[in-house]
Amino acid sequence: MNDSESISHKIDDGEVGLVEFQDFTYKKPFQFESGGEIPEFTLRYEAYGKLNKAKDNAILICHALTGDHHCAGVNDINERKSGWWNFMVGPGKPIDTSRNFVICSNVLGGCQGSTGPNSINPNTNKPYHLDFPKLTLGDMVKAQSKLIDFFGIEKLHAVIGGSMGGMLTLQWAKDFPNRLNRYIALASGAKHTAQTIAFNETGRQAIMRDPKWNQGNYSIGKGPFEGLSIARMMAHITYLSDVGLENKFGRKLRQSEIAKEQFDIEFEVESYLHYQGKSFVSRFDANSYLYLTKALDRFDFYEGQDPKIISDKIKAKGLVVGFDSDWLYPPEGNRGLVENLLKCGKEASYVELSMDYGHDSFLMRSPDLYQLIQTYLNF
Amino acid sequence: MNDSESISHKIDDGEVGLVEFQDFTYKKPFQFESGGEIPEFTLRYEAYGKLNKAKDNAILICHALTGDHHCAGVNDINERKSGWWNFMVGPGKPIDTSRNFVICSNVLGGCQGSTGPNSINPNTNKPYHLDFPKLTLGDMVKAQSKLIDFFGIEKLHAVIGGSMGGMLTLQWAKDFPNRLNRYIALASGAKHTAQTIAFNETGRQAIMRDPKWNQGNYSIGKGPFEGLSIARMMAHITYLSDVGLENKFGRKLRQSEIAKEQFDIEFEVESYLHYQGKSFVSRFDANSYLYLTKALDRFDFYEGQDPKIISDKIKAKGLVVGFDSDWLYPPEGNRGLVENLLKCGKEASYVELSMDYGHDSFLMRSPDLYQLIQTYLNF
Repeated sequence: MNDSESISHKIDDGEVGLVEFQDFTYKKPFQFESGGEIPEFTLRYEAYGKLNKAKDNAILICHALTGDHHCAGVNDINERKSGWWNFMVGPGKPIDTSRNFVICSNVLGGCQGSTGPNSINPNTNKPYHLDFPKLTLGDMVKAQSKLIDFFGIEKLHAVIGGSMGGMLTLQWAKDFPNRLNRYIALASGAKHTAQTIAFNETGRQAIMRDPKWNQGNYSIGKGPFEGLSIARMMAHITYLSDVGLENKFGRKLRQSEIAKEQFDIEFEVESYLHYQGKSFVSRFDANSYLYLTKALDRFDFYEGQDPKIISDKIKAKGLVVGFDSDWLYPPEGNRGLVENLLKCGKEASYVELSMDYGHDSFLMRSPDLYQLIQTYLNF
Repeated sequence: MNDSESISHKIDDGEVGLVEFQDFTYKKPFQFESGGEIPEFTLRYEAYGKLNKAKDNAILICHALTGDHHCAGVNDINERKSGWWNFMVGPGKPIDTSRNFVICSNVLGGCQGSTGPNSINPNTNKPYHLDFPKLTLGDMVKAQSKLIDFFGIEKLHAVIGGSMGGMLTLQWAKDFPNRLNRYIALASGAKHTAQTIAFNETGRQAIMRDPKWNQGNYSIGKGPFEGLSIARMMAHITYLSDVGLENKFGRKLRQSEIAKEQFDIEFEVESYLHYQGKSFVSRFDANSYLYLTKALDRFDFYEGQDPKIISDKIKAKGLVVGFDSDWLYPPEGNRGLVENLLKCGKEASYVELSMDYGHDSFLMRSPDLYQLIQTYLNF
């Protein structure tokens, strides 16, 4: 048995089992960076394992753009939907729920239980819609810090996440330098490139030009589903890689014969994309998509300043992992981040993994990633 | 003066001057590969230079997906719009109108003067819309061959084009082996990858889910402009490169201040994309976009067979040029094409140019490209 087999085996070790989400509500006015305010907010989260007496064994997991709080175990005895990072989180796994207390919260601005643009404003009893304040990653992290307060945790053992989740770990390290020992940022970077902003803006326009968007004022179940679906189809391509898609689909036709109607689905890859678009609209809200992508586009770890000024604020040590086939958050951006941190005298490490799955690589089973995270969490 | 300066200077040499397009109409029924038929068709074209007595100095230029017949000179004494390949075509330029007779025709299925889905069907006096037959690159080339017949040209000196135009040169070499001496295919390849099909399908869905598409039955000036605009914005990103966009726009803000409304245009790159989408709908038809992208997705130079079977048909020699930053029609696809041709004993050459402009590199001024084409046309 080689190393890789031995680790693959471990991946299927202990399971968290059936989990229930919880709702944490902060019942005081909450200020956004933009100056906006909401009278209260809720974060939906899941937690696994036990907080020890010293309260120093907690790990916070930050999800990606369209992710949620359900990252491990199964959500329901009937539905039995597995968490999005199930292979990574559980007893004996890298994020080890037998020794750590693990929290994963849906972000502020989200739409899967946490307060976001389509939540009811208690002051008006109507949804916020576009009256929801302008949102930043700083706001999301500040809201999460209230949840951490609620548990009485002074300092997190680690904050970890991929993509937007990776950027949130950086925001944590910058905004709450005394409240985490380490961060692990996967497939992220210090800021979006022009290309990534361009894709996000095209997705937002697909939503906002759908007549059913109606300036954000749509009822639940009557939103801009076509526009959101187009945005998702496009974004989904950017999460994968040319070689990954080629290996999975190539030019395989959906049926043995050519489509009969002019513009019927013809290739397998088209069918797959249609499915991605369709299933997305049943679980994600268009206004949340607008707010979260804008927050991401605006994120600039250095705030337009000399990297040293920002890096100097950081006390935690960090591991940054880039993936060679990730063209949305390319390795250069991940690598450059660590280079800057090191130049500023901060403890940080960079690893680049070779995987064919594009940006989504961080969500895929990989013995290398598994081992890296396991080890770094126990330094 | 170094070589590159000397060539840059040449680029600005002779101009074709004011040109007028012509319409060639083939007044007999035309059969499509699919079995469909139209009672006649028109190709709009421009021609520069003079056809010699031997009729052996003609070069056919094939345009890209949304290109047109106006590739050199200026179109109108007032509008003065330059051709899309003006730096390449003219007296003393690589495609030399002082020695060659140069034809550039808008393709069958297009919307800029040639017969396409929104043309009037003479049998019904109504637009074809989706009754226009299923279209292939083979159909486009067959229609062009009628234009070449019209000029009494037996054999073209060369067929040259980029992107879809490059694929059309390959189709020419395969379908009319005795009618061309050489072909030059830039930024193309033998077939679309799954990723390219995925982007095209997302663009088509953006059009077809716009309520104004109406199953293709819209009047001129009332089409699915929002959907077409989204499709163009997305496609435009794929024509460029991450590094090219980063150099041009980076994270530059549109104004000195942050946008006031939640989802206003904020970054320069967003503004640029909006402009691309908006200007496109004023010059391009949504149904043509559907037909042409489908024809491209279906194109498979090898027709699913052993490359040898197809390559054996070819008699012309070919030059294939790939661009290192082109991630839509990546260098591998261009390189692989020539590898297969050479393995099958066909005269073919591959050159890979390093330019930052992504897929659109073939449209950009480059002394290397200029010199390559100039030389290859005179072998």
